[in-house]
Amino acid sequence: MDIAGTALLTDLYQLNMLAAYLDHGLTDTAAFELFVRKLPARRGFLMAAGIEQALSYLENLSFSSADIAALRSLGGFPDRLLDYLATLHFTGDVDALPEGTVFFPDEPILRLVAPLPQAQLVETRLINLVHFETVIASKAARQVLASGGKPLIDFGLRRAHGAEAGLLAARASYIAGFAGTATLAAGLEFAIPVRGTMAHSFVQVHEDEATAFERFAHSRPRDLVLLIDTYDTARAARRVAKLAPRLAREGITVAGVRIDSGDLGAEARKVRQILDDAGLGSIAIIASGGLDEDQVRALRDAPIDSFGIGTSLTTSSDAPALDCAYKLQEYAGIPRRKRSAGKATWPGRKQVWRSYAKGGAFDSDLVALVDERADGEPLLRPVMRGGRRVSPPLSLPQIREYALNQLDRMPAPLKDLEPFVYPVAISESLRGLAAELDRQDAGVP
Amino acid sequence: MDIAGTALLTDLYQLNMLAAYLDHGLTDTAAFELFVRKLPARRGFLMAAGIEQALSYLENLSFSSADIAALRSLGGFPDRLLDYLATLHFTGDVDALPEGTVFFPDEPILRLVAPLPQAQLVETRLINLVHFETVIASKAARQVLASGGKPLIDFGLRRAHGAEAGLLAARASYIAGFAGTATLAAGLEFAIPVRGTMAHSFVQVHEDEATAFERFAHSRPRDLVLLIDTYDTARAARRVAKLAPRLAREGITVAGVRIDSGDLGAEARKVRQILDDAGLGSIAIIASGGLDEDQVRALRDAPIDSFGIGTSLTTSSDAPALDCAYKLQEYAGIPRRKRSAGKATWPGRKQVWRSYAKGGAFDSDLVALVDERADGEPLLRPVMRGGRRVSPPLSLPQIREYALNQLDRMPAPLKDLEPFVYPVAISESLRGLAAELDRQDAGVP
Repeated sequence: MDIAGTALLTDLYQLNMLAAYLDHGLTDTAAFELFVRKLPARRGFLMAAGIEQALSYLENLSFSSADIAALRSLGGFPDRLLDYLATLHFTGDVDALPEGTVFFPDEPILRLVAPLPQAQLVETRLINLVHFETVIASKAARQVLASGGKPLIDFGLRRAHGAEAGLLAARASYIAGFAGTATLAAGLEFAIPVRGTMAHSFVQVHEDEATAFERFAHSRPRDLVLLIDTYDTARAARRVAKLAPRLAREGITVAGVRIDSGDLGAEARKVRQILDDAGLGSIAIIASGGLDEDQVRALRDAPIDSFGIGTSLTTSSDAPALDCAYKLQEYAGIPRRKRSAGKATWPGRKQVWRSYAKGGAFDSDLVALVDERADGEPLLRPVMRGGRRVSPPLSLPQIREYALNQLDRMPAPLKDLEPFVYPVAISESLRGLAAELDRQDAGVP
Repeated sequence: MDIAGTALLTDLYQLNMLAAYLDHGLTDTAAFELFVRKLPARRGFLMAAGIEQALSYLENLSFSSADIAALRSLGGFPDRLLDYLATLHFTGDVDALPEGTVFFPDEPILRLVAPLPQAQLVETRLINLVHFETVIASKAARQVLASGGKPLIDFGLRRAHGAEAGLLAARASYIAGFAGTATLAAGLEFAIPVRGTMAHSFVQVHEDEATAFERFAHSRPRDLVLLIDTYDTARAARRVAKLAPRLAREGITVAGVRIDSGDLGAEARKVRQILDDAGLGSIAIIASGGLDEDQVRALRDAPIDSFGIGTSLTTSSDAPALDCAYKLQEYAGIPRRKRSAGKATWPGRKQVWRSYAKGGAFDSDLVALVDERADGEPLLRPVMRGGRRVSPPLSLPQIREYALNQLDRMPAPLKDLEPFVYPVAISESLRGLAAELDRQDAGVP
């Protein structure tokens, strides 16, 4: 099974509902919106990502004859449903925040308008893709802000949650400002810069560390980074100091050393001193090993030139999920409102308007009904009409530049990762509509 | 790109090291072990999973000519490396804990013995697979223990980290004792029981809830579960009480109702009362909505018959990653030891021996060198020799039965999810070997 591409990657209940929709002619136009209900603890903002993968999923959505046969083998699905699925293509409209947009709770990330069965069916995978990349871009943005401009590299494939998570985490973190990734497949798939050093095992298979360094240097002289913490970091740094001039005479430059354990700040200061004393001020120090944004910020003044970040990035370890939802806001032209305790939604199709201070910094947002006019800039843009993209995808460097500009325009406390509630207002008309729907329902027995 | 299947899903540094190994004839036999360094906060045990996917990866490992062309396009890889990769197959041996085994820090989950370049290359994906499923099985086992025997269903595909995570989380949680999953593709791929109810949107597209229930019942009468919290849970329960007898006359049984919001215990008691008063004691109550093991345990005495668990399961939200490592323990017949601060390893090939109390409960474990004899049962079993499986894969129900038996044999505090440090001893010979390697290194300048 091509797990990332199969239309079968959905919840069973979607097909149950589709069967019932088809039985009862419920195929009118539905508008769903994907949004986050509230921020995780310690988070002040989120960054939209994964829209590109979501659009690609919608464009390619179809059930092969093997898929239909598989569904038939499960039993219980009516022919009407299977016939519908066999010819299904997505024909709807999508409006979305551009990837890299900073956004806040209650603001739709994406609005999808399509015949109800289509709009329902795609829920699971749409959330699965947009949620994950948004989780990672939002985490990565914090790490980028904490680093004070020092380059960050994604080292996290091994502890990412499976293949797709590793690949898409590389993409989402690059969008949010990472400089590159260690994940080879992400370099090939998305043209993200790929970086790689060496592992402890390379040192360990040698009888002595100096031989390991020398051999690696001769085999992989380009962007040469030596890992110096396998046994004793200071001792290994002295070995590099001895080796580097000899390699230089052969035309090989030691670009950097990597420290992966211990008190990284203290070790980096020792290593910097050893290298500087040997006239090797140009050898960079790369730190890695269980880092998150708090540790990166604490190390900002250490003589560390760049950071490799793994697990905390690719699992978003402090907040691996967002409280997000994809909810029906309108069906057959009539606004709808879910009122479940603690999970009530704002009804109708909505737009987000962002106002800016002089100089371009974000001032405040307004969530309004889509046909209202408001001050500021509308954030949701048309990206798909009738199942086709409105324009070709942007390049990742373009998205990344936009995302970094977004981070730069956030209010200062958000940039400093300090507690701050960004003002998001709900328009009067939207509040009025919600109240009106509640009043109508109150009359129902 | 078939992201789950491609050999390119690895870290760049693996290829850098392979190039250097090949240049310097470092192709002797290496033994690597995958283990967890320490438990996450609040966790007392872990459950092994993902071995089956790891073996499948090793069996199928190969670089297509398209892969080789892609690597060539990146530039910088020597022909010697590309030629080696073009004909590569895994020819090594693997010993592993049976999936579903309860294990503890410092105990190898898996030992891989192969020519060094092979053993090195597979590191990233091997960790990626075994780590993730182990994370999920370990989390799911806690939820199973907390539920006191009530069935749990995986609802978490949408917030899992991508496609593969959703699919493998269904597998790992089923192994650990979940009763089924909502993920259709997991049902098809792994023959896991698939369950599905309805979403709020189904109710919302109807002008009234009663019509929605009736239509769904007629379209999907099998295993019929109605979602009753879209507007007002008690009111919806009264609607079900009115509808169920009418449906019964048509031969349709309401199997259950689902509550997805609010104070689940209080709502369940209200709903139970309403249904019981109507003589509908056989309608089950299913609870879902942001549940984790603490909440499931707190709801154990509520009149809830089963639970749907999503995000906390498929992201292992309190501990989305384990501090695990895949480390070289022996090369060319000589034991190796990494001594990085806080990350030192136990050298050599190891076995875990488990002793049992009378009645079969786990008493204590001993980590010893592989050629030592010790009391108890050896936990690592041969699963692959010369790149081929020793025996065909077990069925998931077999693995699940073994896993549930493992949970049952844990010491009482672990079963109750209470703080408890299970005794894991390191053998004298192993301690002696580590000390000996440290002494040898101390003499090195």
